Amino acid sequence: MAEYNLYCFAQSGNAYKAALMLELTGCDWGSRFVDFFNGETRTPEYRKLNVMGEVPVLLHRDVRLTQSAIILDYLAEQTGRYGWSSEDERRDIQRWMFWDNHKLSSYTGTYRVLRVFSKESNPGAMELLKGRMMNAYAILSAHLAENDWLAGNRMTIADISACGYLYYQDEIGVDFAETHPAIQRWLDAIASLDGWQHPYDLMPGHPLPGKG
Amino acid sequence: MAEYNLYCFAQSGNAYKAALMLELTGCDWGSRFVDFFNGETRTPEYRKLNVMGEVPVLLHRDVRLTQSAIILDYLAEQTGRYGWSSEDERRDIQRWMFWDNHKLSSYTGTYRVLRVFSKESNPGAMELLKGRMMNAYAILSAHLAENDWLAGNRMTIADISACGYLYYQDEIGVDFAETHPAIQRWLDAIASLDGWQHPYDLMPGHPLPGKG
Repeated sequence: MAEYNLYCFAQSGNAYKAALMLELTGCDWGSRFVDFFNGETRTPEYRKLNVMGEVPVLLHRDVRLTQSAIILDYLAEQTGRYGWSSEDERRDIQRWMFWDNHKLSSYTGTYRVLRVFSKESNPGAMELLKGRMMNAYAILSAHLAENDWLAGNRMTIADISACGYLYYQDEIGVDFAETHPAIQRWLDAIASLDGWQHPYDLMPGHPLPGKG
Repeated sequence: MAEYNLYCFAQSGNAYKAALMLELTGCDWGSRFVDFFNGETRTPEYRKLNVMGEVPVLLHRDVRLTQSAIILDYLAEQTGRYGWSSEDERRDIQRWMFWDNHKLSSYTGTYRVLRVFSKESNPGAMELLKGRMMNAYAILSAHLAENDWLAGNRMTIADISACGYLYYQDEIGVDFAETHPAIQRWLDAIASLDGWQHPYDLMPGHPLPGKG
Protein backbone atom coordinates (compact mmCIF):
# COMPACT_ATOMS: atom_id res chain seq x y z
CA MET A 1 0.00 0.00 0.00
CA ALA A 2 1.23 3.46 -0.88
CA GLU A 3 2.13 5.96 1.84
CA TYR A 4 -0.63 8.37 0.78
CA ASN A 5 -4.02 7.26 -0.51
CA LEU A 6 -6.28 9.67 -2.31
CA TYR A 7 -10.02 9.22 -2.88
CA CYS A 8 -10.51 10.82 -6.28
CA PHE A 9 -11.88 10.61 -9.80
CA ALA A 10 -10.57 12.04 -13.04
CA GLN A 11 -13.30 14.62 -13.61
CA SER A 12 -12.83 16.34 -10.23
CA GLY A 13 -10.69 19.44 -10.36
CA ASN A 14 -10.72 19.56 -6.58
CA ALA A 15 -9.26 16.05 -6.37
CA TYR A 16 -6.75 17.03 -9.05
CA LYS A 17 -5.33 19.75 -6.79
CA ALA A 18 -4.33 17.07 -4.27
CA ALA A 19 -3.17 14.56 -6.91
CA LEU A 20 -1.01 17.18 -8.62
CA MET A 21 0.60 18.19 -5.33
CA LEU A 22 1.36 14.54 -4.50
CA GLU A 23 2.89 14.00 -7.93
CA LEU A 24 4.90 17.24 -8.10
CA THR A 25 6.41 16.58 -4.68
CA GLY A 26 7.28 12.98 -5.54
CA CYS A 27 5.14 11.41 -2.83
CA ASP A 28 4.47 7.67 -2.81
CA TRP A 29 0.71 7.76 -3.42
CA GLY A 30 -2.11 5.67 -4.76
CA SER A 31 -5.58 6.53 -5.92
CA ARG A 32 -8.85 5.06 -4.76
CA PHE A 33 -11.48 5.61 -7.46
CA VAL A 34 -14.72 7.23 -6.23
CA ASP A 35 -17.72 6.43 -8.42
CA PHE A 36 -19.18 9.91 -8.14
CA PHE A 37 -21.34 9.70 -11.23
CA ASN A 38 -23.13 6.65 -9.81
CA GLY A 39 -23.77 8.34 -6.49
CA GLU A 40 -21.01 6.93 -4.27
CA THR A 41 -20.49 10.23 -2.41
CA ARG A 42 -24.15 10.23 -1.38
CA THR A 43 -23.97 6.80 0.31
CA PRO A 44 -23.98 6.46 4.12
CA GLU A 45 -20.60 4.68 3.90
CA TYR A 46 -19.03 7.62 2.10
CA ARG A 47 -20.61 10.12 4.51
CA LYS A 48 -18.90 8.24 7.33
CA LEU A 49 -15.60 8.84 5.56
CA ASN A 50 -16.45 12.50 4.85
CA VAL A 51 -19.48 14.14 6.45
CA MET A 52 -19.32 16.78 3.70
CA GLY A 53 -19.80 14.11 1.02
CA GLU A 54 -17.02 15.40 -1.22
CA VAL A 55 -13.82 14.32 -2.89
CA PRO A 56 -10.92 14.46 -2.33
CA VAL A 57 -10.20 12.59 0.89
CA LEU A 58 -6.58 11.87 1.79
CA LEU A 59 -5.47 9.04 4.05
CA HIS A 60 -1.96 9.16 5.51
CA ARG A 61 -1.08 6.83 8.38
CA ASP A 62 -3.80 7.55 10.98
CA VAL A 63 -4.67 10.94 9.50
CA ARG A 64 -7.79 11.43 7.37
CA LEU A 65 -8.19 14.80 5.72
CA THR A 66 -10.90 16.39 3.62
CA GLN A 67 -11.15 19.67 1.67
CA SER A 68 -8.57 20.13 -1.07
CA ALA A 69 -7.18 23.31 0.51
CA ILE A 70 -6.53 21.51 3.80
CA ILE A 71 -4.95 18.54 2.06
CA LEU A 72 -2.60 20.91 0.20
CA ASP A 73 -1.78 22.63 3.48
CA TYR A 74 -0.98 19.29 5.15
CA LEU A 75 1.13 18.10 2.23
CA ALA A 76 3.07 21.37 2.20
CA GLU A 77 3.93 20.73 5.84
CA GLN A 78 4.82 17.06 5.24
CA THR A 79 6.94 17.67 2.14
CA GLY A 80 8.33 21.11 2.94
CA ARG A 81 7.28 22.26 -0.55
CA TYR A 82 5.03 25.05 -1.86
CA GLY A 83 4.09 26.25 1.62
CA TRP A 84 4.68 29.37 3.72
CA SER A 85 7.49 30.66 5.88
CA SER A 86 5.49 32.97 8.16
CA GLU A 87 1.96 33.52 9.42
CA ASP A 88 1.64 36.61 7.21
CA GLU A 89 2.62 34.56 4.18
CA ARG A 90 0.21 31.81 5.20
CA ARG A 91 -2.62 34.32 5.21
CA ASP A 92 -1.62 35.71 1.82
CA ILE A 93 -1.50 32.23 0.30
CA GLN A 94 -4.76 31.18 1.94
CA ARG A 95 -6.47 34.40 0.90
CA TRP A 96 -6.14 33.18 -2.70
CA MET A 97 -7.20 29.67 -1.75
CA PHE A 98 -10.37 30.95 -0.11
CA TRP A 99 -11.05 33.09 -3.15
CA ASP A 100 -10.44 30.08 -5.37
CA ASN A 101 -12.88 27.93 -3.40
CA HIS A 102 -15.49 30.68 -3.31
CA LYS A 103 -15.23 32.26 -6.72
CA LEU A 104 -12.94 30.46 -9.16
CA SER A 105 -13.10 26.66 -8.82
CA SER A 106 -16.66 26.79 -7.51
CA TYR A 107 -18.27 28.67 -10.40
CA THR A 108 -16.03 27.00 -12.98
CA GLY A 109 -16.75 23.54 -11.62
CA THR A 110 -20.50 24.04 -11.38
CA TYR A 111 -20.67 25.61 -14.84
CA ARG A 112 -18.69 22.72 -16.33
CA VAL A 113 -20.99 20.15 -14.71
CA LEU A 114 -23.98 21.78 -16.37
CA ARG A 115 -22.19 22.19 -19.69
CA VAL A 116 -20.69 18.69 -19.96
CA PHE A 117 -22.11 16.20 -17.48
CA SER A 118 -25.67 17.20 -16.62
CA LYS A 119 -28.57 15.43 -18.29
CA GLU A 120 -30.91 18.36 -17.73
CA SER A 121 -30.69 21.70 -19.51
CA ASN A 122 -30.62 24.84 -17.35
CA PRO A 123 -29.66 27.84 -19.52
CA GLY A 124 -30.54 30.35 -16.79
CA ALA A 125 -28.16 28.77 -14.31
CA MET A 126 -25.46 28.45 -16.98
CA GLU A 127 -25.74 32.12 -17.83
CA LEU A 128 -25.45 33.19 -14.20
CA LEU A 129 -22.54 30.86 -13.46
CA LYS A 130 -20.69 31.81 -16.66
CA GLY A 131 -20.93 35.50 -15.80
CA ARG A 132 -19.48 34.92 -12.36
CA MET A 133 -16.84 32.56 -13.74
CA MET A 134 -15.74 35.15 -16.28
CA ASN A 135 -15.54 37.77 -13.50
CA ALA A 136 -13.22 35.42 -11.63
CA TYR A 137 -11.04 34.95 -14.74
CA ALA A 138 -10.77 38.73 -15.12
CA ILE A 139 -9.56 39.04 -11.52
CA LEU A 140 -7.11 36.15 -11.87
CA SER A 141 -5.83 37.50 -15.18
CA ALA A 142 -5.32 41.03 -13.83
CA HIS A 143 -3.27 39.65 -10.95
CA LEU A 144 -1.19 37.33 -13.14
CA ALA A 145 -0.49 40.09 -15.65
CA GLU A 146 1.55 41.75 -12.89
CA ASN A 147 2.73 38.73 -10.89
CA ASP A 148 4.23 35.42 -11.97
CA TRP A 149 2.44 33.59 -9.15
CA LEU A 150 -0.53 34.21 -6.90
CA ALA A 151 1.35 34.77 -3.64
CA GLY A 152 4.82 34.96 -2.22
CA ASN A 153 6.66 35.58 -5.52
CA ARG A 154 7.00 31.86 -6.12
CA MET A 155 4.81 28.90 -6.87
CA THR A 156 2.80 27.85 -3.82
CA ILE A 157 -0.23 25.72 -2.98
CA ALA A 158 -2.33 28.78 -3.91
CA ASP A 159 -1.34 28.20 -7.55
CA ILE A 160 -1.92 24.45 -7.28
CA SER A 161 -5.38 25.16 -5.89
CA ALA A 162 -6.38 27.80 -8.42
CA CYS A 163 -5.23 25.88 -11.49
CA GLY A 164 -7.23 22.79 -10.54
CA TYR A 165 -10.15 23.20 -12.93
CA LEU A 166 -8.44 25.23 -15.62
CA TYR A 167 -6.74 22.39 -17.50
CA TYR A 168 -10.24 21.24 -18.49
CA GLN A 169 -10.34 24.31 -20.76
CA ASP A 170 -12.08 22.68 -23.70
CA GLU A 171 -14.87 21.36 -21.46
CA ILE A 172 -15.31 24.80 -19.92
CA GLY A 173 -15.45 26.26 -23.42
CA VAL A 174 -12.78 28.90 -22.98
CA ASP A 175 -9.47 29.49 -24.72
CA PHE A 176 -7.22 31.35 -22.32
CA ALA A 177 -4.46 31.82 -24.92
CA GLU A 178 -6.98 33.92 -26.81
CA THR A 179 -8.90 35.65 -24.02
CA HIS A 180 -6.58 35.73 -20.98
CA PRO A 181 -2.95 35.17 -22.06
CA ALA A 182 -1.63 35.83 -18.55
CA ILE A 183 -3.64 32.85 -17.29
CA GLN A 184 -2.37 30.66 -20.13
CA ARG A 185 1.25 31.66 -19.41
CA TRP A 186 0.81 30.70 -15.76
CA LEU A 187 -0.92 27.38 -16.64
CA ASP A 188 1.95 26.60 -19.04
CA ALA A 189 4.53 27.37 -16.34
CA ILE A 190 2.91 24.87 -13.99
CA ALA A 191 2.49 22.31 -16.78
CA SER A 192 6.22 22.54 -17.58
CA LEU A 193 7.20 21.19 -14.15
CA ASP A 194 8.62 17.68 -13.79
CA GLY A 195 5.80 15.32 -12.89
CA TRP A 196 2.94 17.45 -14.19
CA GLN A 197 0.15 15.50 -15.81
CA HIS A 198 -3.30 16.43 -17.06
CA PRO A 199 -6.08 15.41 -14.63
CA TYR A 200 -7.35 12.82 -17.10
CA ASP A 201 -3.93 11.12 -17.05
CA LEU A 202 -3.27 11.48 -13.34
CA MET A 203 -6.52 10.11 -11.87
CA PRO A 204 -8.76 7.11 -12.63
CA GLY A 205 -12.15 7.20 -14.35
CA HIS A 206 -11.56 8.82 -17.72
CA PRO A 207 -13.24 8.53 -20.13
CA LEU A 208 -16.68 8.19 -18.63
CA PRO A 209 -18.63 5.20 -19.96
CA GLY A 210 -20.49 6.36 -23.05
CA LYS A 211 -18.46 9.58 -23.31
CA GLY A 212 -15.71 7.94 -25.37
CA MET B 1 -10.21 56.92 14.34
CA ALA B 2 -10.95 53.44 15.63
CA GLU B 3 -8.20 50.84 15.93
CA TYR B 4 -9.84 48.55 13.34
CA ASN B 5 -11.70 49.82 10.29
CA LEU B 6 -13.98 47.54 8.34
CA TYR B 7 -15.22 48.15 4.79
CA CYS B 8 -18.70 46.65 4.89
CA PHE B 9 -22.41 47.01 4.20
CA ALA B 10 -25.39 45.63 6.06
CA GLN B 11 -26.56 43.17 3.40
CA SER B 12 -23.21 41.33 3.20
CA GLY B 13 -23.05 38.16 5.23
CA ASN B 14 -19.34 37.93 4.50
CA ALA B 15 -18.74 41.38 5.98
CA TYR B 16 -20.93 40.40 8.92
CA LYS B 17 -18.55 37.57 9.82
CA ALA B 18 -15.79 40.13 10.41
CA ALA B 19 -18.08 42.67 12.10
CA LEU B 20 -19.45 40.03 14.47
CA MET B 21 -15.94 38.87 15.41
CA LEU B 22 -14.87 42.47 16.10
CA GLU B 23 -17.94 43.05 18.25
CA LEU B 24 -17.84 39.75 20.18
CA THR B 25 -14.18 40.27 21.04
CA GLY B 26 -14.74 43.87 22.16
CA CYS B 27 -12.42 45.43 19.59
CA ASP B 28 -12.39 49.17 19.03
CA TRP B 29 -13.71 49.22 15.46
CA GLY B 30 -15.46 51.47 13.00
CA SER B 31 -17.29 50.76 9.78
CA ARG B 32 -16.69 52.33 6.40
CA PHE B 33 -19.86 51.92 4.29
CA VAL B 34 -19.30 50.38 0.85
CA ASP B 35 -21.98 51.36 -1.67
CA PHE B 36 -22.10 47.91 -3.25
CA PHE B 37 -25.54 48.30 -4.79
CA ASN B 38 -24.38 51.36 -6.72
CA GLY B 39 -21.28 49.60 -8.03
CA GLU B 40 -18.55 50.85 -5.69
CA THR B 41 -16.74 47.47 -5.62
CA ARG B 42 -16.40 47.60 -9.40
CA THR B 43 -14.59 50.96 -9.44
CA PRO B 44 -10.84 51.19 -10.14
CA GLU B 45 -10.35 52.87 -6.74
CA TYR B 46 -11.94 49.93 -4.95
CA ARG B 47 -9.96 47.40 -7.01
CA LYS B 48 -6.80 49.14 -5.81
CA LEU B 49 -7.94 48.48 -2.26
CA ASN B 50 -8.93 44.88 -3.07
CA VAL B 51 -7.99 43.30 -6.39
CA MET B 52 -10.76 40.72 -5.80
CA GLY B 53 -13.39 43.48 -5.69
CA GLU B 54 -15.10 42.17 -2.58
CA VAL B 55 -16.12 43.17 0.91
CA PRO B 56 -15.02 42.90 3.64
CA VAL B 57 -11.66 44.67 3.79
CA LEU B 58 -10.08 45.24 7.20
CA LEU B 59 -7.55 47.97 7.96
CA HIS B 60 -5.48 47.67 11.12
CA ARG B 61 -2.40 49.91 11.52
CA ASP B 62 -0.38 49.21 8.35
CA VAL B 63 -2.13 45.87 7.68
CA ARG B 64 -4.82 45.56 4.99
CA LEU B 65 -6.63 42.25 4.81
CA THR B 66 -9.26 40.81 2.49
CA GLN B 67 -11.35 37.62 2.52
CA SER B 68 -13.56 37.13 5.57
CA ALA B 69 -11.85 33.86 6.55
CA ILE B 70 -8.44 35.53 6.61
CA ILE B 71 -9.75 38.51 8.58
CA LEU B 72 -11.23 36.11 11.16
CA ASP B 73 -7.89 34.27 11.30
CA TYR B 74 -5.99 37.53 11.87
CA LEU B 75 -8.43 38.73 14.52
CA ALA B 76 -8.20 35.39 16.34
CA GLU B 77 -4.45 35.91 16.51
CA GLN B 78 -4.74 39.56 17.59
CA THR B 79 -7.40 38.98 20.24
CA GLY B 80 -6.49 35.47 21.38
CA ARG B 81 -10.15 34.44 20.97
CA TYR B 82 -11.96 31.77 18.93
CA GLY B 83 -8.76 30.51 17.30
CA TRP B 84 -6.69 27.33 17.41
CA SER B 85 -4.10 25.88 19.72
CA SER B 86 -2.30 23.57 17.27
CA GLU B 87 -1.77 23.11 13.54
CA ASP B 88 -4.09 20.09 13.54
CA GLU B 89 -6.81 22.18 15.15
CA ARG B 90 -6.17 24.99 12.68
CA ARG B 91 -6.77 22.58 9.82
CA ASP B 92 -9.97 21.24 11.39
CA ILE B 93 -11.31 24.77 11.90
CA GLN B 94 -10.28 25.89 8.42
CA ARG B 95 -11.75 22.76 6.84
CA TRP B 96 -15.15 24.05 7.87
CA MET B 97 -14.29 27.57 6.77
CA PHE B 98 -13.33 26.36 3.29
CA TRP B 99 -16.51 24.32 3.13
CA ASP B 100 -18.47 27.38 4.25
CA ASN B 101 -16.91 29.56 1.55
CA HIS B 102 -17.40 26.91 -1.11
CA LYS B 103 -20.77 25.41 -0.27
CA LEU B 104 -22.68 27.20 2.49
CA SER B 105 -22.24 30.98 2.39
CA SER B 106 -21.62 30.95 -1.36
CA TYR B 107 -24.82 29.20 -2.45
CA THR B 108 -26.89 30.86 0.27
CA GLY B 109 -25.56 34.32 -0.60
CA THR B 110 -26.05 33.93 -4.33
CA TYR B 111 -29.54 32.46 -3.90
CA ARG B 112 -30.51 35.33 -1.60
CA VAL B 113 -29.26 37.92 -4.08
CA LEU B 114 -31.51 36.43 -6.76
CA ARG B 115 -34.45 36.08 -4.38
CA VAL B 116 -34.31 39.52 -2.77
CA PHE B 117 -32.04 42.00 -4.56
CA SER B 118 -31.90 41.08 -8.25
CA LYS B 119 -33.99 43.01 -10.75
CA GLU B 120 -34.00 40.12 -13.22
CA SER B 121 -35.83 36.84 -12.78
CA ASN B 122 -33.83 33.63 -13.18
CA PRO B 123 -35.86 30.66 -11.91
CA GLY B 124 -33.44 28.10 -13.36
CA ALA B 125 -30.51 29.54 -11.43
CA MET B 126 -32.61 29.85 -8.29
CA GLU B 127 -33.63 26.20 -8.50
CA LEU B 128 -30.03 25.04 -8.92
CA LEU B 129 -28.71 27.23 -6.13
CA LYS B 130 -31.52 26.32 -3.76
CA GLY B 131 -30.85 22.62 -4.26
CA ARG B 132 -27.19 23.06 -3.45
CA MET B 133 -27.95 25.36 -0.54
CA MET B 134 -30.35 22.81 0.96
CA ASN B 135 -27.67 20.11 0.55
CA ALA B 136 -25.32 22.32 2.54
CA TYR B 137 -27.93 22.81 5.28
CA ALA B 138 -28.39 19.03 5.51
CA ILE B 139 -24.64 18.58 6.02
CA LEU B 140 -24.43 21.40 8.57
CA SER B 141 -27.48 20.09 10.41
CA ALA B 142 -26.18 16.51 10.55
CA HIS B 143 -22.92 17.74 12.08
CA LEU B 144 -24.62 20.05 14.58
CA ALA B 145 -27.03 17.34 15.67
CA GLU B 146 -24.00 15.52 17.10
CA ASN B 147 -21.72 18.45 17.98
CA ASP B 148 -22.39 21.74 19.74
CA TRP B 149 -19.89 23.55 17.49
CA LEU B 150 -18.26 22.96 14.14
CA ALA B 151 -14.74 22.24 15.36
CA GLY B 152 -12.67 21.90 18.51
CA ASN B 153 -15.60 21.30 20.91
CA ARG B 154 -15.99 25.03 21.47
CA MET B 155 -17.05 28.08 19.54
CA THR B 156 -14.39 29.11 17.02
CA ILE B 157 -14.06 31.30 13.96
CA ALA B 158 -15.48 28.36 11.98
CA ASP B 159 -18.84 29.00 13.64
CA ILE B 160 -18.55 32.77 13.13
CA SER B 161 -17.86 32.14 9.46
CA ALA B 162 -20.62 29.61 8.86
CA CYS B 163 -23.36 31.58 10.64
CA GLY B 164 -22.70 34.70 8.56
CA TYR B 165 -25.59 34.46 6.14
CA LEU B 166 -27.99 32.44 8.27
CA TYR B 167 -29.40 35.28 10.36
CA TYR B 168 -31.01 36.59 7.14
CA GLN B 169 -33.36 33.57 7.39
CA ASP B 170 -36.52 35.35 6.28
CA GLU B 171 -34.78 36.70 3.17
CA ILE B 172 -33.48 33.23 2.34
CA GLY B 173 -36.98 31.88 2.81
CA VAL B 174 -36.14 29.14 5.29
CA ASP B 175 -37.26 28.49 8.85
CA PHE B 176 -34.54 26.49 10.55
CA ALA B 177 -36.59 26.00 13.73
CA GLU B 178 -38.98 24.06 11.55
CA THR B 179 -36.66 22.30 9.10
CA HIS B 180 -33.25 22.06 10.82
CA PRO B 181 -33.62 22.53 14.58
CA ALA B 182 -29.94 21.72 15.21
CA ILE B 183 -28.98 24.72 13.08
CA GLN B 184 -31.46 26.95 14.92
CA ARG B 185 -30.13 25.80 18.31
CA TRP B 186 -26.58 26.69 17.21
CA LEU B 187 -27.65 30.07 15.79
CA ASP B 188 -29.46 30.83 19.06
CA ALA B 189 -26.36 29.89 21.08
CA ILE B 190 -24.25 32.38 19.11
CA ALA B 191 -26.99 35.03 19.29
CA SER B 192 -27.09 34.71 23.09
CA LEU B 193 -23.48 35.92 23.46
CA ASP B 194 -22.76 39.38 24.88
CA GLY B 195 -22.32 41.79 22.00
CA TRP B 196 -24.20 39.79 19.39
CA GLN B 197 -26.23 41.90 17.00
CA HIS B 198 -28.13 41.11 13.82
CA PRO B 199 -26.23 42.15 10.66
CA TYR B 200 -28.81 44.86 9.96
CA ASP B 201 -28.07 46.43 13.34
CA LEU B 202 -24.31 45.94 13.29
CA MET B 203 -23.44 47.39 9.87
CA PRO B 204 -24.49 50.48 7.90
CA GLY B 205 -26.82 50.55 4.88
CA HIS B 206 -30.07 49.02 6.07
CA PRO B 207 -32.73 49.45 4.88
CA LEU B 208 -31.88 49.88 1.21
CA PRO B 209 -33.44 52.96 -0.37
CA GLY B 210 -36.85 51.96 -1.69
CA LYS B 211 -36.85 48.67 0.26
CA GLY B 212 -38.36 50.24 3.42
